[in-house]
This record gives sequence, structure tokens and C-alpha cells, in this order.
Amino acid sequence: MTKPQSWEARADEYSLYGFTDLPSVHKRGAVVLTHGEGPYVVDVNGRRYLDANSGLWNMVAGFDHKGLAEAAKAQYDRFPGYHAFFGRLSDQTVMLSEKLVEVSPFERGKVFYTNSGSEANDTMVKMLWFLHASEGNPQRRKILTRWNAYHGVTVVSASMTGKPYNEVFGLPLPGFIHLTCPHYWRYGQEGETEDQFTARLARELEDTIQREGADTIAGFFAEPVMGAGGVIPPSQGYFQAVLPILRKYDIPMISDEVICGFGRTGNTWGCQTYGFTPDAIISSKNLTAGLFPMGAVILGGDLSDRVQAAVERIEEFPHGFTASGHPVGCAIALKAIDVVMNEGLADNVRRLAPRLEAGLRAIMERSDNIGELRGVGFMWALEAVRDKATKTPFDAHLSVSERIANTCTDLGLICRPLGQSIVLCPPFILTESQMDEIFDKLEQALRKVFAEVA
Amino acid sequence: MTKPQSWEARADEYSLYGFTDLPSVHKRGAVVLTHGEGPYVVDVNGRRYLDANSGLWNMVAGFDHKGLAEAAKAQYDRFPGYHAFFGRLSDQTVMLSEKLVEVSPFERGKVFYTNSGSEANDTMVKMLWFLHASEGNPQRRKILTRWNAYHGVTVVSASMTGKPYNEVFGLPLPGFIHLTCPHYWRYGQEGETEDQFTARLARELEDTIQREGADTIAGFFAEPVMGAGGVIPPSQGYFQAVLPILRKYDIPMISDEVICGFGRTGNTWGCQTYGFTPDAIISSKNLTAGLFPMGAVILGGDLSDRVQAAVERIEEFPHGFTASGHPVGCAIALKAIDVVMNEGLADNVRRLAPRLEAGLRAIMERSDNIGELRGVGFMWALEAVRDKATKTPFDAHLSVSERIANTCTDLGLICRPLGQSIVLCPPFILTESQMDEIFDKLEQALRKVFAEVA
Repeated sequence: MTKPQSWEARADEYSLYGFTDLPSVHKRGAVVLTHGEGPYVVDVNGRRYLDANSGLWNMVAGFDHKGLAEAAKAQYDRFPGYHAFFGRLSDQTVMLSEKLVEVSPFERGKVFYTNSGSEANDTMVKMLWFLHASEGNPQRRKILTRWNAYHGVTVVSASMTGKPYNEVFGLPLPGFIHLTCPHYWRYGQEGETEDQFTARLARELEDTIQREGADTIAGFFAEPVMGAGGVIPPSQGYFQAVLPILRKYDIPMISDEVICGFGRTGNTWGCQTYGFTPDAIISSKNLTAGLFPMGAVILGGDLSDRVQAAVERIEEFPHGFTASGHPVGCAIALKAIDVVMNEGLADNVRRLAPRLEAGLRAIMERSDNIGELRGVGFMWALEAVRDKATKTPFDAHLSVSERIANTCTDLGLICRPLGQSIVLCPPFILTESQMDEIFDKLEQALRKVFAEVA
Repeated sequence: MTKPQSWEARADEYSLYGFTDLPSVHKRGAVVLTHGEGPYVVDVNGRRYLDANSGLWNMVAGFDHKGLAEAAKAQYDRFPGYHAFFGRLSDQTVMLSEKLVEVSPFERGKVFYTNSGSEANDTMVKMLWFLHASEGNPQRRKILTRWNAYHGVTVVSASMTGKPYNEVFGLPLPGFIHLTCPHYWRYGQEGETEDQFTARLARELEDTIQREGADTIAGFFAEPVMGAGGVIPPSQGYFQAVLPILRKYDIPMISDEVICGFGRTGNTWGCQTYGFTPDAIISSKNLTAGLFPMGAVILGGDLSDRVQAAVERIEEFPHGFTASGHPVGCAIALKAIDVVMNEGLADNVRRLAPRLEAGLRAIMERSDNIGELRGVGFMWALEAVRDKATKTPFDAHLSVSERIANTCTDLGLICRPLGQSIVLCPPFILTESQMDEIFDKLEQALRKVFAEVA
């Protein structure tokens, strides 16, 4: 067998591609990247792309941030790897845990490290099952999430994710219950106000708890703004309606801040943007600005006390990943938190978010086929519709959002198709002129594709 | 609240410790590490420990390997992060996939990246469920593993793991079936030869397949040598007896090489040491010599073709982790494979393994309380027993192996207590004099503890 020679052929030969539209790759070839410059990435053919996707929401400081690379390199020289088992752990790990509790919404807390958001959500589920069993409630195992939620891809975190594509794996597993997505524009009923919609979803939550039995439910997980579901901010008052019900039935509320955490919504945490305090936080992605695989479960004071007490009863918590609390990941995260919070990145998001929103709104208003603009901070989605008045989507076989994204790529702009929407979540270092480049190329692509499918 | 000041108090305050014996930590304090020197690690108080555990089996090139650090640093300067979704991926990712197939036991293959061995096993289960459903067998979901197997800590990989401690989570999930552990010394019956033992386990496998129904079974997973189960090599002829049965019933055989892969047993893969070819390989740990969290599923030719065909039918495989195929991890792995295979590390394992075995055997023979020495290459376990003739273990409440490990730590040697055994899996860079240091300190600790509990 002759070995493939071109980068694209080698990529095809040896990769099982994930989350990749194969017809697009077969037609266009893989894009093999060599390096980055600020918010741009460059491929093996020297083509440059403005990555308005921040990689996967996570490369918030761009693709060549000097300070972050220096932090990584210094730690590789100092202590390039260790675990956190057996009561042995690196100094960087101790410092990061202290810092995470300090910047969390909690007065006290404890941290458990994983290598991804998927593992962190999977870990949180195990932790809740363990806690409830230890407290005499082994039947409290059901997990409540929402349709369009994205919590990861392990079997359990995929079961929490509310996306129909998981049917190909025979998921979700039993006991993972999906409530209505709090997207008023799409799921609000005829004549229903946004407040009425929110109230209906709160009633659905309470009805579900009563139907299933509060004593069978382990916890409720929610992203403050749904990310991979298509950037869906909650309807007005959603978390204020939901939290009291969870408290009433003593159901832990977990905020999945993998995307929202560390600046994406304009505040350190998405829960701060939406005015609620959860019982635990799941963090990943921005935590290391994408330079290292890391996830963290940050338990608030009450859950910390209860889980720690449960562990003391059996003397050892039998859970942990080899690279949990890796010293290089922790050193990078310490620097990333500092860079985002204290070196102007979060400020830039707050300063430029209104400009980003205004530019996208103007594009929507100039188009007959953008039905909704939604988002906050530096995460936005434009929803394509065949008919603006009736909100009717395009036929799925037209692959409208894929075509828009591919056309953007041809123009040197990376954005993400999600369902029928186009998602933009640029790096926090974005300048005004780079933002204008996004507006310009995106609008060109929208016009071209809408003209083709009209 | 006053913040804790000492490193140990800060570690306790903010950590939810995993896989950590809390009574030991409460009594002795956490060990907070700052850096490493060859196979040694150094704590905040300047204490030096020979880590005969290689961190967690994974830091095979020690804790300050210059070439590996340089590879990591160069890539942080070049391209510090990207994903592998949407047919976009880094050049390093393409090169590593090509290399992994080249060094695999397969003539052709495809690679899927994760961030850990847990995620790789969890991914393989999803992949098998997806494949079987796509081929018209959605009922093929049961997973066969063995007691004492260790496959990870996500809900699914913990369900595959055959350890009683997972009961605290209400695991395993239904459909995860554990067969007898192929440990002849412990599980062989009165008067049964090793060959008869192996034949009995093969019959158990076939009986289980027939009882459950071959068409309900998704796959069989096995570590060539069980690692965290306590370093358990298979009984004589085990894989040669098991493989034909799996082939007969068309059940994919997955070799979990997270620990064995890349040199630990003296060959590149554990399956080579034990003379069998699986259908897929799970890799992690040594893959990056512990410098970066990474896992990989390496599919052989047949599974590659079938899974790829299944993906083509639905156009997109809806699975993938944000840091799948991270360019820095891939650059490190490319270097680590080269360092282990071509810069003398695997050679050192082959050269010194007989010396390691001989030294440990001498220790066993001088002790009345070591019942078995087992292992291969650079992975060994000494099993503590109250009575050598009857193989009777010590009472569990004596925590004999914990006490031995803690005594070793006091002497500046890190080894791992697993059940009633002491596990040694030193870095591949170990010298003869460092090996003698292990022998010396270990034997001191054994004598002290056995004298106390006798």
C-alpha cells in the first residue's frame, strides 16, 4: 500500500474525524493548521483564517499569547508532570485550587480536577450519586438537564446533553431527564409572554420533580447560556424562577460554566451575569485559555462539607484521573485567570460586546433570512430562517448553516454552524478592526448563500 | 475566616482528594511537590523521593527530561492549542496519527484522540454501541471485562473496572459483566494446574457468551497485564485461549494498553509481549510520558473500515473532546515515542528487567511475608501474606500495604499500595544504583512493618 503524501490525504487516512461533516471534508479537503497569529490561524498552504470560534470557545487569548506560552514553558522546565493521588500533589495544584475558590462565587469550597468538561460533569454525577448514597438516599440518581443543553461526550455527559444526535449511541441512558429549553423565541407558545413562558418552564420543573419523586433526583445541571445548543441565553427570570424550586426540594444546582466561565459573558461567571448562586461549578475550556486539557469541579461550601464528610466515612474517595491537577495545566490556568481578569481581556469583552451586538443586529436587520440574534458578551448566534415572520426554518437538506460556514472559510473567516444558526464566539483579544472583518465577511457569506437557496 | 498558611494546610483546605487514604493524610500531612530530578521528586521542605511509581505509571522518562520539555516548549511557541473538529486539525495531530498507526500492531488503522485513558475507554464503548446499531444490531451493548481490571473512572469506564470500591457510586451500571481475573496464584483452585485454570476461564467466557447471547455483547476489553488491579500478568496461554472464542462469536477484542503500551512490558505493546493481536488499542499515560493529558483509540483495519462506513452513513460522527488531538500533546507524544523507542528507554527496560526481577525475588525469598512476586518488564508487585504456605492475607484493618508504602515514603522511596500488594513501576531511565536504592529501602520498610504486625 502506498502511503498518502499530501497533508489532506494523510489526515483522511489516519483520522476518525469527530464532529465533522464528512461530505464537506470529502468535497473540500481537511484544513491542516500549522500556527496562529493573534486571533488568526494559518494552514499548511499559508492561508489565514480569522477564527471567530476561538478554536472551540476556549482559545480566548488567541493563538500566540506570549505570557501564556511563557508560563507553560517555565513549568515544563520546573516540574513537567505529576498527579494528585495519595495526598501527593504539586505546589501549582495547591495554588490553583486556592485561586479557584477565591474567584468563585463561593465563600468556601473545594476543587476536584479532571482533564475536560466532559469528565468534570461525569465526575459531578458520580459525586452526587456517592453523596446521596452516603447520606442514606441511594435512590437519588436521576439527573435533570434541558433540551439543547451540551454537557459533554462521555456516555454520562452525553446522556445529560439534550441533542437528538446521541440517539446513534442508544443514548441517553435511563434516568437522564430533559426539560424544555428556555428559548422563548423558538419555544414560546402563541400569545405567551416571556414571563409566562418562564413561569411555564418553572411549573414543568416542579411537575417533573413531583411526578418522578424529589427523593429520586440527584441534581439539576444547567449552562447559564447554552453554548453548543446554539448560544441560547435563558428567558427573562429563568434562574430566579427555577432556583427556589430546586431549593424547596433540596436538589443540588450545578452551573456548567465550561463555556461561560472566565469572561465569556462579560463577568467571571455566567451565574453572576444571570444573578444566581449555584451549589457547584463545572469549569474547563477558558480555564487554561485552551492551552492545556483541564476541567474542574468547584464545590461550594455546603457541598464541600457534605462530600468531604461522606469521604471521611469511607476513608478514601475512589475516583481520580492520572492527570488530575497536572502541574503544567495548573501553572497555565493560574496565568490564564490572571491574563483574562487582570490584563484587559475581560475588560475588552465588556467594552466591545455592545459593538459586537450592534454590528450583528445591523446585519440581521439588512437580511430577510436572519430571524433572531441572541447572545451576551462575546457569544452570539444568528438564526437563519426561510421566513422571518413565521420563523420557518430552511429545509434541513439545504444545510444552510454548513454552507454559510464553508463560504466564510473560503473568505478566511471561521465561524460555527449549529443547527440553523451561525455562532460567533471570538477570542477576547479581538480588536475593532478585526471585528469589522468578521462583520464584512459574514455578511458577504450570508448574502451569497441566501441568494443561492432563496 | 483566616486563610491557611502552610502548604499542607492549604492543600487540605481546597482539595477534594481522590484515591487518597485520608487517615494517612490527616496523620502525616499532604506531600506538596515542587520539582523533579531524574526519577526523583522533591517536596516543599526539600525532601527527595525516588518515585518507583513513575508518578502514576506514566512519567517513564523521569521528572526533568530535557528533550521532552524542549518538544513541549517549541510547540507552545509554534501553535499552543487547537481542536480536531469540523475537518480542521493541526499538522502535529496528522503526524501523530500516522506515527501511531505505523508503530501499532495493525497494517492499517485510524486514530481518535481523547484526554485520558478513561475517556478513551468510554469513547470505545460509545463507538462499539454506535457501530453495532449502525450494522443493525442495536441490542449489542453488553461489555465484558474481568474482576480486578482497571479501565478508568468515568461512569462507564468505572463500570468496566472490576473493583468493589465502585459500589459507593452504585456502579457498575447494568450490562457490564466481569469475568474471573486470570490470576492463577490467587484464584487457581485446589489441585488445578495453570493450564487447567486457563481452560476454565476460557470455558467461563464461552458459557457467559452463550448465556447472555452473543448478539447482546458489544465487546471484550482487557489489559495485557492488569495494572491498578495489582500488576497481574495473565495466566499461561490466557489470551491464546480467549481470542479464538471472541473471534468465533464475532466479538471485538480491545487491548487496554494505557499502562502496558510504549515499553512498560519490554515491547512497544503488551499484546506483543503476550502474543496476540486485538481489534483496537486504547493508549494513554506513556503516550506522552506523562507530560500532557492524552488518550487515543487506535482502531485496526477491520474496525476502521466498519466504523468509517457507519459514520459515512450518517455523515458525521457526533463525538469528540475539545482538546482531542491538541497540537502540544501531539508534539509531545511524537517526541515521547521517539525517546522511548529510539533513545534507549525501552532498551533499558529490556536490559534491566531481569535484574529488577532478581532483586525483588531475593527480597521475597528473604521474607516470610511475601507470598508472590509477579510482573514483567518494569512493572512488578510483591504480595504481602500473613502465611506464605496458605497464602492467607493480613487482616484488612492492619492496612499492611499502606503502612509499608508510608514507611517507604519516610525513607525517601515512593511505591504504591494496591490491595495487599506493593507495586513498583519505575521510570524507564532507572540506573542500576537507583534500582539498588529501591531494593534497600523497600526491604527496610518490609522488615519494619512485618515486625510490627507479626
